[in-house]
Amino acid sequence: MMADFDTVIHGGTIATADYLAKGDVGIKDGRIVAVAEHLSGGDQRIDAGGRIVMPGGIEAHAHIAQESSSGVMTADDYLSGSISAAFGGNSSFIPFAAQQRGQSVDDVLATYDARGARSVIDYSYHLIISDPRPEVLTDELPRAFQRGVTSFKVFMTYDLMNLGDGGMLDILTVARDHGAITMVHAENNDMVKWMNKRLAARGLTAPKYHAISRPQLAEEEAINRAIQLAKLVDAPLFIVHVSTEGGAEIVRREKFNGAKIYAETCPQYLALTRNDLDRPGMEGAKYICSPPLRGTDTQEALWHHVAHGTFESVSSDHAPYRADETGKFLNGFDVPYPKIANGMPGIAMRLPYLFSEGVVKGRITPEQFVALSSTNAAKTFGCATKGRIAPGMDADIAIWNPETTRTVRQQDQHDNMDYSPFEGMQITGVPEVVLNRGAKIVQDGVLKAAEGQGRFFARQPVDLRGKPGFKVPEFNPAQNFGADLR
Amino acid sequence: MMADFDTVIHGGTIATADYLAKGDVGIKDGRIVAVAEHLSGGDQRIDAGGRIVMPGGIEAHAHIAQESSSGVMTADDYLSGSISAAFGGNSSFIPFAAQQRGQSVDDVLATYDARGARSVIDYSYHLIISDPRPEVLTDELPRAFQRGVTSFKVFMTYDLMNLGDGGMLDILTVARDHGAITMVHAENNDMVKWMNKRLAARGLTAPKYHAISRPQLAEEEAINRAIQLAKLVDAPLFIVHVSTEGGAEIVRREKFNGAKIYAETCPQYLALTRNDLDRPGMEGAKYICSPPLRGTDTQEALWHHVAHGTFESVSSDHAPYRADETGKFLNGFDVPYPKIANGMPGIAMRLPYLFSEGVVKGRITPEQFVALSSTNAAKTFGCATKGRIAPGMDADIAIWNPETTRTVRQQDQHDNMDYSPFEGMQITGVPEVVLNRGAKIVQDGVLKAAEGQGRFFARQPVDLRGKPGFKVPEFNPAQNFGADLR
Amino acid sequence: MMADFDTVIHGGTIATADYLAKGDVGIKDGRIVAVAEHLSGGDQRIDAGGRIVMPGGIEAHAHIAQESSSGVMTADDYLSGSISAAFGGNSSFIPFAAQQRGQSVDDVLATYDARGARSVIDYSYHLIISDPRPEVLTDELPRAFQRGVTSFKVFMTYDLMNLGDGGMLDILTVARDHGAITMVHAENNDMVKWMNKRLAARGLTAPKYHAISRPQLAEEEAINRAIQLAKLVDAPLFIVHVSTEGGAEIVRREKFNGAKIYAETCPQYLALTRNDLDRPGMEGAKYICSPPLRGTDTQEALWHHVAHGTFESVSSDHAPYRADETGKFLNGFDVPYPKIANGMPGIAMRLPYLFSEGVVKGRITPEQFVALSSTNAAKTFGCATKGRIAPGMDADIAIWNPETTRTVRQQDQHDNMDYSPFEGMQITGVPEVVLNRGAKIVQDGVLKAAEGQGRFFARQPVDLRGKPGFKVPEFNPAQNFGADLR
Amino acid sequence: MMADFDTVIHGGTIATADYLAKGDVGIKDGRIVAVAEHLSGGDQRIDAGGRIVMPGGIEAHAHIAQESSSGVMTADDYLSGSISAAFGGNSSFIPFAAQQRGQSVDDVLATYDARGARSVIDYSYHLIISDPRPEVLTDELPRAFQRGVTSFKVFMTYDLMNLGDGGMLDILTVARDHGAITMVHAENNDMVKWMNKRLAARGLTAPKYHAISRPQLAEEEAINRAIQLAKLVDAPLFIVHVSTEGGAEIVRREKFNGAKIYAETCPQYLALTRNDLDRPGMEGAKYICSPPLRGTDTQEALWHHVAHGTFESVSSDHAPYRADETGKFLNGFDVPYPKIANGMPGIAMRLPYLFSEGVVKGRITPEQFVALSSTNAAKTFGCATKGRIAPGMDADIAIWNPETTRTVRQQDQHDNMDYSPFEGMQITGVPEVVLNRGAKIVQDGVLKAAEGQGRFFARQPVDLRGKPGFKVPEFNPAQNFGADLR
Repeated sequence: MMADFDTVIHGGTIATADYLAKGDVGIKDGRIVAVAEHLSGGDQRIDAGGRIVMPGGIEAHAHIAQESSSGVMTADDYLSGSISAAFGGNSSFIPFAAQQRGQSVDDVLATYDARGARSVIDYSYHLIISDPRPEVLTDELPRAFQRGVTSFKVFMTYDLMNLGDGGMLDILTVARDHGAITMVHAENNDMVKWMNKRLAARGLTAPKYHAISRPQLAEEEAINRAIQLAKLVDAPLFIVHVSTEGGAEIVRREKFNGAKIYAETCPQYLALTRNDLDRPGMEGAKYICSPPLRGTDTQEALWHHVAHGTFESVSSDHAPYRADETGKFLNGFDVPYPKIANGMPGIAMRLPYLFSEGVVKGRITPEQFVALSSTNAAKTFGCATKGRIAPGMDADIAIWNPETTRTVRQQDQHDNMDYSPFEGMQITGVPEVVLNRGAKIVQDGVLKAAEGQGRFFARQPVDLRGKPGFKVPEFNPAQNFGADLR
Repeated sequence: MMADFDTVIHGGTIATADYLAKGDVGIKDGRIVAVAEHLSGGDQRIDAGGRIVMPGGIEAHAHIAQESSSGVMTADDYLSGSISAAFGGNSSFIPFAAQQRGQSVDDVLATYDARGARSVIDYSYHLIISDPRPEVLTDELPRAFQRGVTSFKVFMTYDLMNLGDGGMLDILTVARDHGAITMVHAENNDMVKWMNKRLAARGLTAPKYHAISRPQLAEEEAINRAIQLAKLVDAPLFIVHVSTEGGAEIVRREKFNGAKIYAETCPQYLALTRNDLDRPGMEGAKYICSPPLRGTDTQEALWHHVAHGTFESVSSDHAPYRADETGKFLNGFDVPYPKIANGMPGIAMRLPYLFSEGVVKGRITPEQFVALSSTNAAKTFGCATKGRIAPGMDADIAIWNPETTRTVRQQDQHDNMDYSPFEGMQITGVPEVVLNRGAKIVQDGVLKAAEGQGRFFARQPVDLRGKPGFKVPEFNPAQNFGADLR
Repeated sequence: MMADFDTVIHGGTIATADYLAKGDVGIKDGRIVAVAEHLSGGDQRIDAGGRIVMPGGIEAHAHIAQESSSGVMTADDYLSGSISAAFGGNSSFIPFAAQQRGQSVDDVLATYDARGARSVIDYSYHLIISDPRPEVLTDELPRAFQRGVTSFKVFMTYDLMNLGDGGMLDILTVARDHGAITMVHAENNDMVKWMNKRLAARGLTAPKYHAISRPQLAEEEAINRAIQLAKLVDAPLFIVHVSTEGGAEIVRREKFNGAKIYAETCPQYLALTRNDLDRPGMEGAKYICSPPLRGTDTQEALWHHVAHGTFESVSSDHAPYRADETGKFLNGFDVPYPKIANGMPGIAMRLPYLFSEGVVKGRITPEQFVALSSTNAAKTFGCATKGRIAPGMDADIAIWNPETTRTVRQQDQHDNMDYSPFEGMQITGVPEVVLNRGAKIVQDGVLKAAEGQGRFFARQPVDLRGKPGFKVPEFNPAQNFGADLR
Repeated sequence: MMADFDTVIHGGTIATADYLAKGDVGIKDGRIVAVAEHLSGGDQRIDAGGRIVMPGGIEAHAHIAQESSSGVMTADDYLSGSISAAFGGNSSFIPFAAQQRGQSVDDVLATYDARGARSVIDYSYHLIISDPRPEVLTDELPRAFQRGVTSFKVFMTYDLMNLGDGGMLDILTVARDHGAITMVHAENNDMVKWMNKRLAARGLTAPKYHAISRPQLAEEEAINRAIQLAKLVDAPLFIVHVSTEGGAEIVRREKFNGAKIYAETCPQYLALTRNDLDRPGMEGAKYICSPPLRGTDTQEALWHHVAHGTFESVSSDHAPYRADETGKFLNGFDVPYPKIANGMPGIAMRLPYLFSEGVVKGRITPEQFVALSSTNAAKTFGCATKGRIAPGMDADIAIWNPETTRTVRQQDQHDNMDYSPFEGMQITGVPEVVLNRGAKIVQDGVLKAAEGQGRFFARQPVDLRGKPGFKVPEFNPAQNFGADLR
């Protein structure tokens, strides 16, 4: 016998990273309390017949209510951003809380706490560090970690963000010592600046040259360097938005070599190419993001890596800058590509795209889809009660109709944007109902949640079970004259 | 509300390939019907406080009631073998049903059905094919497949078993066409025979020379060849008992290259070395198995591959030949190594060893342990209702005490053997209760099952979702003048 | 001061595997006795102004006056074959002396000595072993080795030739023990037979299906297997006519791993593709050879390996079967592809093609050209006095006009064939004068040599300096209980 | 007939990168004018019976009369340095001409011209660039190139030398455009500084910690980065003093991938280990060099790469800082390791060590020895008339006694140093006579040359025949919207 339920989802096919099984899910007080063949009762019963019942997506890479280093603010705040995420099948997300130069981490978090309060789904933050002053390293990061912000992001590119290799070693070491994971945007800054100079000297400044200005080698080099830095101090590292086959291969090789490496790619690198930047007029500007879109050979290679376990996750890198003077064209409409804001929206498209092109087309299994969209993010980023359908987990659930086919339209993204890079694509599979801690957030295309209904969630340290230390000879006391350098 | 349960396992930590979570498991009519935070009721309640509740192990590699090609019968039949398996945390197993030359597959299965009827746990068979006559390929294998025997094993070694590359291509193709998976014992027969000749000519026939007679290159070569054969016809292939780093690397590389390759290793290759064959007198004969035990460097390399996903499973290759004249010494006690029966027992040690050296020592996570010991075997071999803790699955469950430490003794193996190669090893973690379809089979060291309580289970075709075809140019109509060669 | 010369080649650019330098070459008694800035004297002076003076080519792979296992005799005997070779810039060649089943090696060599006596250039033989009876291994091969036949070729394909892995191990071991090198035609026989059966069952027997019947995997598998066999006994091995990227990669990897591996590819794999087999009517039959022609991607990959040191040599695999009833169509004109003789001519095109597409197009340097066409063959096959321009070396020299451009025509091949697979190709660079031991063999398109002018040359053991033994654990006394298995 | 000779070396075995042959070498006006079986005449005849006659070594990595960035001057100037080189079998060398910050390249070269004038052997310079101001890039480097200084070295480490990735791209591009080759000292500067900080904080400042402060990862990362930078602009790059297996593997992989990469290692990385830094007192300081000495596993791996073609050359990195207050201890005798000058002598030991441990011990062939010590340096660095024994080449020759065995002593180094790191080693093989442009420089341990007898030699552009361009998609007009970015 079981106690009664607030909600029972019945008659569906439960899909986890582990199995597909017919069954019902019982929810009480926002938690999954039962997964069973048949559950009676429930104050509310949701018929999932013919549907797939999955863990709600966890969006681990989104820029929400965030100023870029060049001063432009994303079009989405935590209200619109979370709504769009929910319509895309997500029950929670982890946007970035970005430190400005001179700002304390405490102040950063206070700022984002105020912004996050509007979210309709649960949220946490990855902390972006651009100014690792001594007190940041010794006091502020440990404090952030204490309150459950257990991932720190650094940049290897952009003059105002790039910490240098020494700064990265400092962050990696602090993160490792506290159990946090470091994330990295890996592109070689000097290569990009050199290309910019070269292109500018030739007057090649149309949007499409953005794709040329950030070569694949710039990413591949930086991914390798970031991994060697992480290996030096035996720290975990998460490579965001891998966009190259070479980068994926390095990730794969170094994972096997014993480095504690995690990585993601994004739908845009699977779905779009650099030719999209060559659309007429400034239309191409909509497809400017960093790292940039690549070629069709890259798409195929990245899909192969998605299917073969190189990436923990597929994330959106939702960076919603409108194609107007508030966003991409803050510096004017007919400016050289370096003055156009980088980024594109996609938080509502991540799971539908991956389901449609991945599961429906047979490139990945439903179990892999769940892992890539939710479970692995939970494990990597310490979301202890999310990303799995199991007793005690938060009732973060998406109910998918796997057969509905639709055409992507911007207005269905439910964000604050004025375009979608996926516009016009045919997509099969739609998240019809999304729950966060048991509460329906969206249902059949209608928002059910109230502003501020989401809650901040504290995260756990990175889970390094099964990941013994990388063997740097110089850190091996037997080989370094007994010195303890950790 | 839920209907009442036959059995409730309460208060434990449920461990799956996906998660660890506190919770109860409700069982009815032999199936798991609920996984929940708290379940009341249950005709029988099992207290799992402080225990781990896992899917029961699925032993996918065991020789039970099987005559070797040289005529020696295993010491264990389906009664003793299944009892030993159960004491080792297994709820089901898939021994081999071996065809003799001239025998029809139907007759093979009838023979093993009679033998299997004594089992105390559920069982299926992998069919060993040693005589692929035309009617075997066209009629008998499809009939076996129809009754749920969906895996066919072939040998690349032993003169009486080795089918040759052409025979393998025939089996791989028939298996592929019906959805079955081919398993292979991969050692180069000619290399082994050449070494035997060489050793004999020098009078080097003590048991330890068995380890020398089957070189690592013999396995590596044959694994590579088997995989190329499978690629040629785009068929799935399972490499049994990988014992070399080189072999593991080939498996890993070819998996990524897109071949449909699956593989296992065994505890003996992780725990023992060729030096064990050099024990005094004929004691070394106890450690004769094929492929043979290797060196300590191999142990480390194989553990690395176990932890990094190269292997789906760790299996026992339980081959129980007693160290007496009924088994190893059928041909006499002081014979050259080629006349000593190959194989060692271990069905009761597989999970305890893997738990103790893997989970307890931090080499793998509990989730990996579940996958390697149960879930992956279920997925690979089409055991649709086994290997997972989820609604509708068979209530095949093992309840482990993760802290009990014991010393391995032969008499605790509960088999018909007169020795254990793991004798004297310290092991932490013990499966205290094992259920098969809801019925307790063992509890606290006591057998609870009756002879014949296990049932044969039909298996599904191999699951190739997410495994698009290997691209052999000659099979690509665009490159082969339009020929359809599948 | 120096003694006078029989011949001085003056005013040219001397090209060796080491350097390009202006200089003269002085010849006396058939040997190079001086290489100098300026040499006066000489009974005969050859003006090499504007020309390149190179070591004459050494053709290391040609079928001359050889019956195939199916009974067809090559169109070229040692007279026509050597003339064609000479017109192609070769000063010597090493065709095969092929053992028939039941034939003694002594008898084989006597037979070929009679045939070779007609040659206009120096010659040696690689001995093909198809019947390794005990006395062949113990007595006949050592005797052949004693008289300077220091390379033994074996086949992994063709039912009548294939020795099996055990037979290969025997040959490899005998060869190693005497200092000979084993050569291997590596294709998996069973794969080919399985494909033949498959194609025949579908009625796909046109010439083009020959290309499909011998898959790339068949070569890649066999190359790998041959190398593992060689590693097992730590013997040198030469892989003939590598036609696949996969095969080249294995060669490259294993060379670096320490195996004593040597390899060649052939111009037809660089110049032609499987589409040539799809020419109208039986025209495609002219392009039937084994391994078969592949795709354009393979061409590019093989050129990359040629340029990067994977191959010691580029050889012709000249196998001259006329496109008439004496050759390819011995079994009739409209027969299935398996009944058409395998092989194509090319001994006169090897160097011109490699020079034109390699040196002229910048894919390789002149120094690499010399190494690939002459010097490396001399080193690999123990031609102690050939393949180099240095004091004491045989005056085997080709004088090339690097700028002449011509269109390939069959009649200019000077062989006994009725077609050239290179017909119509534009080629730059022509060997205008060829000398063998100081005697002009061809000059400006005219044969200068008399029948029988060439001499048999004894060869040295394979040079294994700088190639320490491969480490097979089982052959390491420290790891194999002290056994000495070599 | 030939004109008479100034010198004839007779009766020896001539060894080149291509062959070993008995023969005589005739010299006239400082050039090799004949290589012949027998040469009569000669104003001077040198009996080379039982000796090996090789191209004199070309030392391509030496610090001579050079101030380090920290102000210490090498103990050897061009007189003592060239004498020591000559006693070590070298006929020429290419030390560095180092730019100081603010200094013009013209001034650098004028400074070194004055210093070089004392040399007893021929010399050229690699130009070290530490201050790539615009006029350096546009005017001064092209001017240096015009006068035959065709190699530019940059540093990725040392705060005062490190140009950053952008600076490297600028140098690589200028070098490529003029046909020069860029050389790089590859160690990650931030990693080293971070380690220094870490070690200092723990008080670990004894000499041995120098080895720990510059991890293998620091070199491996920087080698990879340097290569990616070179690939971006498709420029040739020479990696100096590779000291790690990982670095060698990257070099090897990227060479095959089509990058124009060249590399060297040094005897100290083959002969010594980090344990040498742990000698008592400040004795360890003698073994401080950068990159630092590694472990025995590295020695074995580097030898394997030397034998298998990964490195063009083995160079000395002769950096002669005396173990006194003028050199290593300029900052005092009991200072932390970062204050001890980096570098060790070895210009006289490079060839003897490589001959003894390489040729005599069978790790490499004599031909490889010649290539690694002389010929490849000539080819890589555009020394058109050196490094080969051929007509027209400078008569730069070393005559070796291959059997003499001696014990290394500092006083036999003939340098200005007060120690040799090879002290006490047993060495077989000694260069008895060394000629530079036909003049004896040393003979039987006696200096025969006068100060200033050596001449500066202009060098050619790097030879890129056979090295087609690396394919960077972004530089492929078909993929970059037609932009020409070279």
